[in-house]
Amino acid sequence: MSKVVSFGEVMLRFNPEGYLRIVQADRFMISFAGAEANVAVSLANYGINAAFVCKVPAHELGDACVNDLRKYGVDTSFILRGGDRLGTYYVEKGASQRGSKVIYDRAYSSIAMAEPNEFDWDKIFEGADWFHFTGITPALSDNMAKACEDACKAAKARGIKISCDLNFRKKLWSKEKAGKVMSGLMQYVDVCIANEEDAHDVFGIQAPETDVKQGILSPEGYKWVAKKLAEHFNFEAVAITLRSSISANDNLWSGMYYKNNEFYFSREYSIHIVDRVGGGDSFGAGLIYSELKGSDPQTALEFAVGASCLKQSIEYDFNQVKVQEVEALVGGDVTGRVQR
Amino acid sequence: MSKVVSFGEVMLRFNPEGYLRIVQADRFMISFAGAEANVAVSLANYGINAAFVCKVPAHELGDACVNDLRKYGVDTSFILRGGDRLGTYYVEKGASQRGSKVIYDRAYSSIAMAEPNEFDWDKIFEGADWFHFTGITPALSDNMAKACEDACKAAKARGIKISCDLNFRKKLWSKEKAGKVMSGLMQYVDVCIANEEDAHDVFGIQAPETDVKQGILSPEGYKWVAKKLAEHFNFEAVAITLRSSISANDNLWSGMYYKNNEFYFSREYSIHIVDRVGGGDSFGAGLIYSELKGSDPQTALEFAVGASCLKQSIEYDFNQVKVQEVEALVGGDVTGRVQR
Amino acid sequence: MSKVVSFGEVMLRFNPEGYLRIVQADRFMISFAGAEANVAVSLANYGINAAFVCKVPAHELGDACVNDLRKYGVDTSFILRGGDRLGTYYVEKGASQRGSKVIYDRAYSSIAMAEPNEFDWDKIFEGADWFHFTGITPALSDNMAKACEDACKAAKARGIKISCDLNFRKKLWSKEKAGKVMSGLMQYVDVCIANEEDAHDVFGIQAPETDVKQGILSPEGYKWVAKKLAEHFNFEAVAITLRSSISANDNLWSGMYYKNNEFYFSREYSIHIVDRVGGGDSFGAGLIYSELKGSDPQTALEFAVGASCLKQSIEYDFNQVKVQEVEALVGGDVTGRVQR
Amino acid sequence: MSKVVSFGEVMLRFNPEGYLRIVQADRFMISFAGAEANVAVSLANYGINAAFVCKVPAHELGDACVNDLRKYGVDTSFILRGGDRLGTYYVEKGASQRGSKVIYDRAYSSIAMAEPNEFDWDKIFEGADWFHFTGITPALSDNMAKACEDACKAAKARGIKISCDLNFRKKLWSKEKAGKVMSGLMQYVDVCIANEEDAHDVFGIQAPETDVKQGILSPEGYKWVAKKLAEHFNFEAVAITLRSSISANDNLWSGMYYKNNEFYFSREYSIHIVDRVGGGDSFGAGLIYSELKGSDPQTALEFAVGASCLKQSIEYDFNQVKVQEVEALVGGDVTGRVQR
Amino acid sequence: MSKVVSFGEVMLRFNPEGYLRIVQADRFMISFAGAEANVAVSLANYGINAAFVCKVPAHELGDACVNDLRKYGVDTSFILRGGDRLGTYYVEKGASQRGSKVIYDRAYSSIAMAEPNEFDWDKIFEGADWFHFTGITPALSDNMAKACEDACKAAKARGIKISCDLNFRKKLWSKEKAGKVMSGLMQYVDVCIANEEDAHDVFGIQAPETDVKQGILSPEGYKWVAKKLAEHFNFEAVAITLRSSISANDNLWSGMYYKNNEFYFSREYSIHIVDRVGGGDSFGAGLIYSELKGSDPQTALEFAVGASCLKQSIEYDFNQVKVQEVEALVGGDVTGRVQR
Amino acid sequence: MSKVVSFGEVMLRFNPEGYLRIVQADRFMISFAGAEANVAVSLANYGINAAFVCKVPAHELGDACVNDLRKYGVDTSFILRGGDRLGTYYVEKGASQRGSKVIYDRAYSSIAMAEPNEFDWDKIFEGADWFHFTGITPALSDNMAKACEDACKAAKARGIKISCDLNFRKKLWSKEKAGKVMSGLMQYVDVCIANEEDAHDVFGIQAPETDVKQGILSPEGYKWVAKKLAEHFNFEAVAITLRSSISANDNLWSGMYYKNNEFYFSREYSIHIVDRVGGGDSFGAGLIYSELKGSDPQTALEFAVGASCLKQSIEYDFNQVKVQEVEALVGGDVTGRVQR
Repeated sequence: MSKVVSFGEVMLRFNPEGYLRIVQADRFMISFAGAEANVAVSLANYGINAAFVCKVPAHELGDACVNDLRKYGVDTSFILRGGDRLGTYYVEKGASQRGSKVIYDRAYSSIAMAEPNEFDWDKIFEGADWFHFTGITPALSDNMAKACEDACKAAKARGIKISCDLNFRKKLWSKEKAGKVMSGLMQYVDVCIANEEDAHDVFGIQAPETDVKQGILSPEGYKWVAKKLAEHFNFEAVAITLRSSISANDNLWSGMYYKNNEFYFSREYSIHIVDRVGGGDSFGAGLIYSELKGSDPQTALEFAVGASCLKQSIEYDFNQVKVQEVEALVGGDVTGRVQR
Repeated sequence: MSKVVSFGEVMLRFNPEGYLRIVQADRFMISFAGAEANVAVSLANYGINAAFVCKVPAHELGDACVNDLRKYGVDTSFILRGGDRLGTYYVEKGASQRGSKVIYDRAYSSIAMAEPNEFDWDKIFEGADWFHFTGITPALSDNMAKACEDACKAAKARGIKISCDLNFRKKLWSKEKAGKVMSGLMQYVDVCIANEEDAHDVFGIQAPETDVKQGILSPEGYKWVAKKLAEHFNFEAVAITLRSSISANDNLWSGMYYKNNEFYFSREYSIHIVDRVGGGDSFGAGLIYSELKGSDPQTALEFAVGASCLKQSIEYDFNQVKVQEVEALVGGDVTGRVQR
Repeated sequence: MSKVVSFGEVMLRFNPEGYLRIVQADRFMISFAGAEANVAVSLANYGINAAFVCKVPAHELGDACVNDLRKYGVDTSFILRGGDRLGTYYVEKGASQRGSKVIYDRAYSSIAMAEPNEFDWDKIFEGADWFHFTGITPALSDNMAKACEDACKAAKARGIKISCDLNFRKKLWSKEKAGKVMSGLMQYVDVCIANEEDAHDVFGIQAPETDVKQGILSPEGYKWVAKKLAEHFNFEAVAITLRSSISANDNLWSGMYYKNNEFYFSREYSIHIVDRVGGGDSFGAGLIYSELKGSDPQTALEFAVGASCLKQSIEYDFNQVKVQEVEALVGGDVTGRVQR
Repeated sequence: MSKVVSFGEVMLRFNPEGYLRIVQADRFMISFAGAEANVAVSLANYGINAAFVCKVPAHELGDACVNDLRKYGVDTSFILRGGDRLGTYYVEKGASQRGSKVIYDRAYSSIAMAEPNEFDWDKIFEGADWFHFTGITPALSDNMAKACEDACKAAKARGIKISCDLNFRKKLWSKEKAGKVMSGLMQYVDVCIANEEDAHDVFGIQAPETDVKQGILSPEGYKWVAKKLAEHFNFEAVAITLRSSISANDNLWSGMYYKNNEFYFSREYSIHIVDRVGGGDSFGAGLIYSELKGSDPQTALEFAVGASCLKQSIEYDFNQVKVQEVEALVGGDVTGRVQR
Repeated sequence: MSKVVSFGEVMLRFNPEGYLRIVQADRFMISFAGAEANVAVSLANYGINAAFVCKVPAHELGDACVNDLRKYGVDTSFILRGGDRLGTYYVEKGASQRGSKVIYDRAYSSIAMAEPNEFDWDKIFEGADWFHFTGITPALSDNMAKACEDACKAAKARGIKISCDLNFRKKLWSKEKAGKVMSGLMQYVDVCIANEEDAHDVFGIQAPETDVKQGILSPEGYKWVAKKLAEHFNFEAVAITLRSSISANDNLWSGMYYKNNEFYFSREYSIHIVDRVGGGDSFGAGLIYSELKGSDPQTALEFAVGASCLKQSIEYDFNQVKVQEVEALVGGDVTGRVQR
Repeated sequence: MSKVVSFGEVMLRFNPEGYLRIVQADRFMISFAGAEANVAVSLANYGINAAFVCKVPAHELGDACVNDLRKYGVDTSFILRGGDRLGTYYVEKGASQRGSKVIYDRAYSSIAMAEPNEFDWDKIFEGADWFHFTGITPALSDNMAKACEDACKAAKARGIKISCDLNFRKKLWSKEKAGKVMSGLMQYVDVCIANEEDAHDVFGIQAPETDVKQGILSPEGYKWVAKKLAEHFNFEAVAITLRSSISANDNLWSGMYYKNNEFYFSREYSIHIVDRVGGGDSFGAGLIYSELKGSDPQTALEFAVGASCLKQSIEYDFNQVKVQEVEALVGGDVTGRVQR
């Protein structure tokens, strides 16, 4: 069983029932979420030994958080306990022309306030095959940017593969700071994952004639971006998710993969959205799983896209699907028939 | 800040959770609703000083009702307290080919039984810029028809603009009585709002070759109706909402506006319905807001249609959207992307 | 008022709220369901005297089950009380590309363990016009296969019409055993109902060039199957439901009917699914109702297809619609408009 | 199996979840209730053929109401369908020093507006052994007072026993009118049931030195009242429930029975209240059941008190207990141990 | 109508349904709360013009918060909008021997980070009769301690009465700092409110032989404490709430009042707890209401204790009771009987 | 960290919300439970390495079950996956004089149908310090009785302490069979745990003049029973829980312990019940924890009784308390005060 370490923040997520707006709700559904935690849960559901590294308070909310990760099979033994707060965020689910709204309340969390040397990377990486983080972790604080660097160095030294999802969050840092810090970290990264906006926001890399806000997606443009990224940072591979939003309920979803100087495009799915948050993370998890398994690039990409397609039919951030379910979808069972 | 007075009934609304039929439910979600109250809440959400005039019982259900309007920023100081009952209504949400069902239980409500002279229109209209009512209010009782007349006269005397949504309800009165009473009130009205069936039901005005039940909508037909209405009652403007029901889940939605002898047609939205009840009222509120702001007719219509498009992605009757949200939609952000 | 007797298992059904997966849920919605019970409830909703024959435990779960059938108007006086368990099943509702999952836990139920001679068919069939069962009942146990035979003989002796929905369940028995037992029972059956897979699974009858798993439906193929079935078992009529699954949310739905050497095809509905479980049973109930009423084949088929179209917009297995609702749909009111 | 006919109003009851006040709630639990309907359900739970006579609207709320009574085994075949509204009422559950609040919205209901001659008492009383009504039914309207008289006469003519629970409701009529109308009806009544306040409110009969509002209950006082009532109206028996309210959560509960010139007092229960509404009705049902069974007065009283003690541990108005449960309690099993 | 200004933090409160522990919950009920906001809502429910001063974020959570205060009639026009976060807190309701748990997550809230000069006290105090704050507000930050001082000075200058509830929170500051800051503010305070532990925690004032943790309450001890406080800070009056915790479900509750050199003790209530959080605040509101009304000290105390007794039978922090309800209780109606 | 192995069945538990009876519910809360699983979760909450041995189906319900145990920290690596069904049970919570009802539906579960040799006890017991089972496990099937014997022998051979809770279940086997099988297993047991009825039901050991059904508990009687048990089976220690049921809401709870020829009695708690199911199991877990820690008998008993007192204030079977919470209670903090 392969071991994957992911490092980042896990938050308590709140959302009103169904399509209620926040001002209408008198109760919130709760779940736990975070880009890297989402990857860990998804990998655990695939049978991978997924260790998640974080710091959460020692009180009952921290317990609930650790319990939830443990519930879904994540190795929580490297989660530090202490500090003052668990980050939270609020999701108001959109419908039709009304987009979902996300409010983050994550500043001053235990993980953001942690010291880099609280993490014993040598112990954490024992037996590990893969290390994953996203652009959110270094954005949490300078300390966490340093911790990412420490982790990358330790992983590199042990020959562990490193993947990074660019995941730019404009509420956490400026494009300038993101560009500077992320550029420093990219030297350690083997596999880079991005959505249609990240490369531009973080590194200013944008294909000519692309306007992501308007949902104008050009295959040629994405090829150009992926190649540019790979050349600039010497990535082994670059994966990009392609979302075309028709309405808050209906999206088109596909991906491209650039590896060994080849471009691969996946099947495109027309998705009836249940919860799209965590879609990109489930793509990353699918890709890591496939790479660890040694799949060829097209197969790896299809698995990642299929997995993240299914995620968007599932409530909350975590991707609650098994390998067989993804493989059945990728194998052509796309009609959602009842399984008795 | 402009002040708008709206006058009508507010009811306690019940609906089963989700798509359950009434016979399947063991609990009902509760909210408050009513054509004119819906307009008031929507306007309050746009920052307008929205005063709502009504009468509700002095007991806890009346308290809950006033509280709810106050919660959303409506000026409730002109709501009389007393009488025996708060009208109620039940909504069973439809899906696919099964239409929603609405059961009204509003007879003998405090407002229907109120005396015209309980309302001190001079005080109510102090500082007001606009008066809005719908065809439901005079249909509640002869007393309320008289109260509408009193209000219209008082408003007219003060130079306050008056809008009326025809809103024919066949359960409340006959087409004959509606035609007679409404004709009397129309002389005071500046802006007339109607849906595709009202003009025919109330005034017998129907364009040739239109069959609203079958969803056959002809732009020419609507132009004809609007012009006819305006000429007959000397309206300053006539607005018509155009709904094309594909299924209980999917509707097309647009509007037309006739003002200064010009016809304006809005963009058409393909809506994935969350709750369509209150759609017309949110259109009216959008139009009043825009007129008060001095928007040109096309802009006013687009705002009204955009606002009512968003309403239908929101649970319950009240339109819980802010000006910026409508403007973003009208400005072209129609794909329901996540806002972080 | 016609009397229809249906015989089979009724189970306690569990499902998570909304689209939650089973591993995410902390509460389950409960309802009662079973192919023949579904038919009984649907017929009771049409005003038919619908008697349901079964055996359920004497404890509170059995009470709840009988109460629920009684609530919807079914004659429960022939439901035996005793034995150890009420069968249960779990439905996880799918969305988009993720199909619904059904887990049965029905072995050793009171009905499966009942003795054939516990049922007093002479008394049960008093005044009856129609007898309905499905391929599930004989699959429950050898005893129940025998009970089906007893019932068929008793019904036949009294000149009662018999309908059977093939309803193959691979978890209950093998295709071989199903084929053998069902062939024996088919001699008593007048009207045979099947979905697109049953004829093949139970009797090995498959039209050339049809692949039901892939949703490739050919009208000619179905004609071929229906004719084959009718000839082989001397059925008076054969009805087949045709489902084309676009996604877990969107299905096409229609039916065909073969009677008096004529083929009838129904209108096809594009359904936005609320709960598709029980769709076939509601088709059967619609057909039985129409046949009892003496409708011509095309009318009978359209009623059955319309009824089962509406069922799929309703939560849980039971079809909660009245005759007027089906007739309004069949009559052309397909747009799901609000009924006030 | 004995047949009992009860006649009165059944309403849709709303209550917030748990101890929420009405102004705090965003959903209401729904159930159906009414003094005479409560008696019918309780009797049906004891295996009695309990027919309930009423009139409810023909729409879905009326369906839901009839279904609910049918669910619990009541014979609903004499419930007329039609009229405009189903009465409703709201219960806000109290706790500690905060008492429960009940808001009735029952005026103009289908039953209150029904004509006396809509009820075919000859058919209704076919095979009946007992007729039950309460002081609420004649209070609904003059028509219903007349209908009660019709029913009493028809029952008397057939030798059917008649019981009446005085059940004074000050919101429905004045003490004066109640006294006058009820006095007229009492001539037909065999068994009179009352709580500690009714005899005083309706007939002005009050024992010296009793103050029911202060919870001062004197056995001698109740003997005096019962004897007085029996003498005045020539009742065969008089039963009085005795409630001592310590707090909204804790009540003492017992009863007395006067029959054949003897007084019987029951065991007193210390009740931890779940829902006390319907307590008196469940007492009445217990008494009727026992009298039909031919129990001696002490046994009948203990059954009635035990039944109504259990009711108050059950949510909503209907008493969901079986004969064995009451008998186990009366037999001494008062400690609420788990039954596995 | 008197006007009362209260100043402090309002938070989003989360609690699991019923008695679930935090680690067991998958949804949280939401409400809004805060010592001074609780006082404002309670006063608004008494018909007082209650203005609440605070700062909350401009996003949807801030909207929901302002809406909720507005719903209950609080004047929210002095609530500033801006800053980064709305403080939150979590309540896990205890039962029997298991005490409730409260987790605060309030650091860095908009109000804690606000500048003192953002508050325009001259405008806020226009027409005001009373100013209320608690020891929590100055504990939020040095800025807020300064703002409290500004407010006190401005109130004093206008001759507005000032009340302060000591409300020591050890998670917010040390006893030392509390003592120092609070001592500085006490010079402006007219009426001091405290519970059995505050005087000791903040000012080190403890009567001999009292051990509050063990629930040993001596009337003499409290007299000693009140007198000491009054002498030391020259208070016009001192009120102390006395809670004796028998279990998490059952508490004894009373109060004492020291004014004009006289001691007053209230009736003691035996409370069955629904939600005890906010009990002290509802006492303060009752006292302020009574003082504004000019009640004599014993009456004022009884009103305050009665009001806070009722609060503890109500979910969430806000005291949802009207004057008449408190007066009925204080007048002797303590048995929680149903009000129809 | 000590390792404790427990072996038995884990079931899916259903219960209606709050105090609803089963026939009233339209949804069930779900949790997982089972005597030995309850012990495992409780021990994991104390920081013990708690391994639970069982067999559950490979489908989603089995996943949910394993996930839930994992969530609470149990080592689930020895849970076999396979077989047909997960046992279920239904709890209807009682109140006041109405006792809780439990309906088991556990026959033919995966664990009951498992073969003894599926369990690799050598591997399971690696590093273990304690083995726990109850009288339920051998009652599931002859195979499981054999598996218990295998486990006991393997544990004994390794010098692992063995505890057994007699836990007689009359629905699973007769007293005769229980007596025979359990007598055979008792030779391996070091610590025997029982409630007030078990010793009599299983081994016919009953002190003179004790009537457990009537709640007549005599300290001398329990001493007699404990001594008798210890002598007969050569137990190192015997622990007995003593429950006195005042009502379904209020119980007295204490325990006695017999060890080294000494008798120890614990403090008695007056418990306001939230959920009493699992009380005995939480006592066992408390005792095992204390014995592993080397506590003296009185301390061990007080911890076990305190732990199980707290359990009964918690919903569902699992005891969600930490060591510090139990120690605080045992240390005297019994008043359920709020912890901020």
